[in-house]
Amino acid sequence: MQKIRIGMIGGGIGAFIGDVHRMAMRLDGMIDLVAGAFSSNADRSRQSGESLGLDPARVYPDYRTMIEAEAALPADQRIHAVSIVTPNHVHFEPAKMAIEHGFHVMCDKPVTFSTDQALELRGLIEKQQCIFGLTHNYTGYPMVKEARAMIASGELGAVRRVMVEYPQGWLATNVEESGQKQASWRTDPSKSGKAGAMGDIGTHAENLAAYVTGLKIVQLCADLHTFVPGRRLDDDGAMLLRYDNGARGVLLATQIAAGEENNLKLRVYGEHKSIEWSQMEPNTLLVRSVEGHLTVKRTGVGELSQAAQQASRIPAGHPEGFLEAFANLYREFATAVQDDLAGARKPMADYDFPQIDQGVEGMQFIDTVVASSEQGSVWVDWPQY
Amino acid sequence: MQKIRIGMIGGGIGAFIGDVHRMAMRLDGMIDLVAGAFSSNADRSRQSGESLGLDPARVYPDYRTMIEAEAALPADQRIHAVSIVTPNHVHFEPAKMAIEHGFHVMCDKPVTFSTDQALELRGLIEKQQCIFGLTHNYTGYPMVKEARAMIASGELGAVRRVMVEYPQGWLATNVEESGQKQASWRTDPSKSGKAGAMGDIGTHAENLAAYVTGLKIVQLCADLHTFVPGRRLDDDGAMLLRYDNGARGVLLATQIAAGEENNLKLRVYGEHKSIEWSQMEPNTLLVRSVEGHLTVKRTGVGELSQAAQQASRIPAGHPEGFLEAFANLYREFATAVQDDLAGARKPMADYDFPQIDQGVEGMQFIDTVVASSEQGSVWVDWPQY
Amino acid sequence: MQKIRIGMIGGGIGAFIGDVHRMAMRLDGMIDLVAGAFSSNADRSRQSGESLGLDPARVYPDYRTMIEAEAALPADQRIHAVSIVTPNHVHFEPAKMAIEHGFHVMCDKPVTFSTDQALELRGLIEKQQCIFGLTHNYTGYPMVKEARAMIASGELGAVRRVMVEYPQGWLATNVEESGQKQASWRTDPSKSGKAGAMGDIGTHAENLAAYVTGLKIVQLCADLHTFVPGRRLDDDGAMLLRYDNGARGVLLATQIAAGEENNLKLRVYGEHKSIEWSQMEPNTLLVRSVEGHLTVKRTGVGELSQAAQQASRIPAGHPEGFLEAFANLYREFATAVQDDLAGARKPMADYDFPQIDQGVEGMQFIDTVVASSEQGSVWVDWPQY
Amino acid sequence: MQKIRIGMIGGGIGAFIGDVHRMAMRLDGMIDLVAGAFSSNADRSRQSGESLGLDPARVYPDYRTMIEAEAALPADQRIHAVSIVTPNHVHFEPAKMAIEHGFHVMCDKPVTFSTDQALELRGLIEKQQCIFGLTHNYTGYPMVKEARAMIASGELGAVRRVMVEYPQGWLATNVEESGQKQASWRTDPSKSGKAGAMGDIGTHAENLAAYVTGLKIVQLCADLHTFVPGRRLDDDGAMLLRYDNGARGVLLATQIAAGEENNLKLRVYGEHKSIEWSQMEPNTLLVRSVEGHLTVKRTGVGELSQAAQQASRIPAGHPEGFLEAFANLYREFATAVQDDLAGARKPMADYDFPQIDQGVEGMQFIDTVVASSEQGSVWVDWPQY
Repeated sequence: MQKIRIGMIGGGIGAFIGDVHRMAMRLDGMIDLVAGAFSSNADRSRQSGESLGLDPARVYPDYRTMIEAEAALPADQRIHAVSIVTPNHVHFEPAKMAIEHGFHVMCDKPVTFSTDQALELRGLIEKQQCIFGLTHNYTGYPMVKEARAMIASGELGAVRRVMVEYPQGWLATNVEESGQKQASWRTDPSKSGKAGAMGDIGTHAENLAAYVTGLKIVQLCADLHTFVPGRRLDDDGAMLLRYDNGARGVLLATQIAAGEENNLKLRVYGEHKSIEWSQMEPNTLLVRSVEGHLTVKRTGVGELSQAAQQASRIPAGHPEGFLEAFANLYREFATAVQDDLAGARKPMADYDFPQIDQGVEGMQFIDTVVASSEQGSVWVDWPQY
Repeated sequence: MQKIRIGMIGGGIGAFIGDVHRMAMRLDGMIDLVAGAFSSNADRSRQSGESLGLDPARVYPDYRTMIEAEAALPADQRIHAVSIVTPNHVHFEPAKMAIEHGFHVMCDKPVTFSTDQALELRGLIEKQQCIFGLTHNYTGYPMVKEARAMIASGELGAVRRVMVEYPQGWLATNVEESGQKQASWRTDPSKSGKAGAMGDIGTHAENLAAYVTGLKIVQLCADLHTFVPGRRLDDDGAMLLRYDNGARGVLLATQIAAGEENNLKLRVYGEHKSIEWSQMEPNTLLVRSVEGHLTVKRTGVGELSQAAQQASRIPAGHPEGFLEAFANLYREFATAVQDDLAGARKPMADYDFPQIDQGVEGMQFIDTVVASSEQGSVWVDWPQY
Repeated sequence: MQKIRIGMIGGGIGAFIGDVHRMAMRLDGMIDLVAGAFSSNADRSRQSGESLGLDPARVYPDYRTMIEAEAALPADQRIHAVSIVTPNHVHFEPAKMAIEHGFHVMCDKPVTFSTDQALELRGLIEKQQCIFGLTHNYTGYPMVKEARAMIASGELGAVRRVMVEYPQGWLATNVEESGQKQASWRTDPSKSGKAGAMGDIGTHAENLAAYVTGLKIVQLCADLHTFVPGRRLDDDGAMLLRYDNGARGVLLATQIAAGEENNLKLRVYGEHKSIEWSQMEPNTLLVRSVEGHLTVKRTGVGELSQAAQQASRIPAGHPEGFLEAFANLYREFATAVQDDLAGARKPMADYDFPQIDQGVEGMQFIDTVVASSEQGSVWVDWPQY
Repeated sequence: MQKIRIGMIGGGIGAFIGDVHRMAMRLDGMIDLVAGAFSSNADRSRQSGESLGLDPARVYPDYRTMIEAEAALPADQRIHAVSIVTPNHVHFEPAKMAIEHGFHVMCDKPVTFSTDQALELRGLIEKQQCIFGLTHNYTGYPMVKEARAMIASGELGAVRRVMVEYPQGWLATNVEESGQKQASWRTDPSKSGKAGAMGDIGTHAENLAAYVTGLKIVQLCADLHTFVPGRRLDDDGAMLLRYDNGARGVLLATQIAAGEENNLKLRVYGEHKSIEWSQMEPNTLLVRSVEGHLTVKRTGVGELSQAAQQASRIPAGHPEGFLEAFANLYREFATAVQDDLAGARKPMADYDFPQIDQGVEGMQFIDTVVASSEQGSVWVDWPQY
């Protein structure tokens, strides 16, 4: 087994999401984190590398230096890929440079600051045959994959109604003014982009529904709002959705839902059956039939789809959580890179992790939602790029 | 204690809702069902009365006969009130006639077939000093009353977001064509009115949210749809809501949600706290605080509001359900009639059961939702009548 | 339909269990409460009757007077049955007298103060052909009946393990010293009998497990304890059980489980399937198969046993609770009396309500448990009476 | 940060528990697996090492070779510790040899095949100042640590009743005869020891209750049984417990509970409060007060104990599961080894992971339970070693 070598951009010690990526990378023993430019502050980058036990020679003061230096290393030493875990406005430049230097990329979501950047990346990725992953991590859960497989197989019949929601409460007060770093950049349009809650968690909700149902939104009508005084981006929003097959949907994304943790939920009602899944109890999938039968599918139990089985590591009843789901993305990404190294790369659609198309879709989602809301919460068509 | 004598209109043996009303009337021993016109078919009415053990002399072939005959009885024998449990299109005429003959009225919802009728009834009720109740029964649950009391006391702070939903699955197929009586009239615009699912259960959802939050909808944008081929009324719909205090909301009412029973749920997110209630587990009220504390209020446990305490009959942990909640409406209605008989009637707002204002509001809701949807799912203002 | 006339013994206004019986009697409109001796205090009895709207002539100063006076009334006026809702030590005498005067009896549990009394009652009941019901009300729930039907049909295979528990918390402190009336008599051996928690709720747990499994306990080993200083009866106890088919069990009954409401739960593990039921969510029955499938049976949904269907009154998803379950016992009891009046009485085993055999079994249970515990928590055989 | 180097004994590719240990070691980046004797079959060991990407020179044909060869390496290369993940009968010899060669040890549970071995190990550990960990992994969950901290702080008052249970269903049929490897050795007394279900999962239940309550069992009365024909060890058992403070308990461990996954649950009822925790929803801790208040503590939310906070890695609402709990043991173990290397080792009781004392306690538990059951399910005192 060829271990994949990764260099991280951002994610200095103390950054929540950097730790998450590192734990996800480690879990399956397929990836070695060997390099990093962990902070725009060279000192902090160095300290982070040290505390991670990295070779100081491969801890760089900035991502440009890292990409150039790594590219100059012999093939059996240099990194295969970078992992970009910076705020939204610092995704595009490092991703572009990494791709141009022949590195594969795992990138946090939303993929870029603007849709134009996302489209430019898409072109580059295709041109360079880059393996590009996007950490829409909630699709990594086994029971999400089971729901997707059930719908793809036709077991639910035509999907009629979709309900997807992501309530959080951590921005119910203006924590950004108390110096909370996560809150600061996420509520700052110069770093987060033109959407707040919708960009941060609305995109997760949209991605989850799209992954599970396989449907495309054709029109939406969104009502975004900012409840916390002084905040510059939406912290709450809901929308009505119309899908390409005629199904109807509702999407909610709010960060002012007092007391909510990360209560992402999806319900899909089909002609014959319906499914219900909740991120905070991820190993359970409720299945209802039109005759009224309610069955509970569980991670690791009984006859599940191959995708659901592969996404699980331990016996039933031993809960697998967020990190395992996250690790599933890295595992699949690493498999793609290994295949590539072995000259056996499959079509990218055969790998089960979010890629640049999901990134572009997320940016289109933000564009459409913001357009709808700014025009007075009217129906807006999904763009054709 | 003066027992209240009631005559029922509709609800012949076998009619689900007639049985529900009768059980609700009986529970507290405050009401005697002594008369009835149980069916538009005189024979069926007679048989129903017989099986209920009523005096045959007071089982009438139709409601007109009943109202006239009862009005002619001595005061210590004649009914005090009628209970109207017919399909929507047969609410207005019997209610009007009963009020004009001096009877009080308990009526199924929606209150009438058209808004004009509702407004006319409102005038009559005021003129005749009729005690008029409407069976928006879900507000009868103790924990719903607790949620209302918490919000009224300011414990949640300003309400920001409301999520209310009522998914059912019983109309996921065209059961109306198989002779299911409930389904037949509810999907028939000549009997149900201009809305299907929205009239039947959307009004319950609206009423519940209004009762708990005390807020008024000022604008809404609704997307109604009919999924089952051949059906003439909406069987699914969702909408965005804007409330008079700036809060935002989503309301879902669908009868094609395969496998759902009566999954009415309400969440209200305030500045400081939020509440979550589910009709299928009605004795539990989840309360979250902005600091993240999650407490579970339970029927009969600890320091609850007076309204919640009065709505409960048995010790904690012994579940009270749908019939008890329904009976709470009848109990409060009977109390009002008793007070009236005793010359001690309080202002009607002091009695805790849905009345004509809620009936008018329900009709306005239907009007507004249908108008929004028919105009292409645009924002429509709530009417000022 | 012949309405059944009942006279109540005990249950004066304010007595929790009297209200419960009255609500349960009323729910289905099959029973009229027409007489009562509601208290050993004649004044209190009279006031209770008045507040219930009874004919004062039939509100009696004590049960002896009632039984004699009612027996002297013409057959078309006198009560058909008495309902005994006094503390345990006042069950036997009124029951005996009522039976001897030709009345049927519905009696609270445990059936008597001593086993000898229970056996004597059994003889009398047989001799007088009395219809005798015992309010082990938890067996009235639809999903309990479904579980019983599943096991009786062999769907679970041989039962292997039984877990039944009833934790309450209301006696976690010495509330009996603060004048709480319920607590006072239940912790008083001269009123409650030789067992405290075991007699009060342990018998419910035993009865529930017996009803559902159809198994007999052959041996048990019990450890009873009194945690609250100064209390004279057990307030906590657990035991190991061995059943006649070789199955093993555990039974817990405790009233010092701080914060527990009425958390009665039953799990039965069979060779092929297992079931799990919880009184606080009574409309749900979990069914697991040895292959790992988990299905959720729900009151009113899908293909349930006839017994479960008949025990339910309203459509699925509208929760039915404690009072409905309690009313199921009265409904079945009233049916038996009606059949008897019509000369069409079936074998008593064909009526689905707890009877004298369950009463005797409850007393044997108390005897065996107390014997085991007093002898040092050794294994004791179930007695053969 | 000094990375800890570990060599694994047992756990060849395909062995469930080997994978679990490896994932747990990797999660926090504190440990490198650098050596292994993965199978008693040298070929299989080699293949396992290869697939794990280990240096072939450090993949050994058996544990004796490994221990000797590693001991001969320079200090800056050789392993610091071994991880023993073999069946029970192959714990003692490798542990003893490793300790004698100066290595630290992480060992699967139960610690040894016999109590004598456990006691011998305890002596050796003390003599050699070995850091010895035992993977009673369920104590690694944050909410278990919170429950322990609450009880230690006196928040519950004196503990009165303990209910701990671990039902599984995977041995409900004789899968050992179908060649299932896990089942084969676990049902074989020559490999598993004198207890089956009690040794495998009963010890987990006992350890969990002991960790959380801090109480010692002084007497128990156990009823073990074998339900599956032909099986040689208990597959089901329950017992009554008496604790050193007078508290009472029940422990259930069964592997024939059809359809159960790993449904380990603990309830502890104290004078003032009670706690309830369930392994299959590990991030929730229910807390009830004697006044009836029910609060829900959640991993990562609000003011938790330091131990609970340190055991959690990601923000609230992102579920942490079995592997994270397992990794908490390895993290604490690695910290102890690091401290030792740095000359700053604290008293072993200050490290929060199961150690040899818990191993001895587990063996005593097995001895006592088996003695009780074999003597006819009588009360047996806990031994004093």
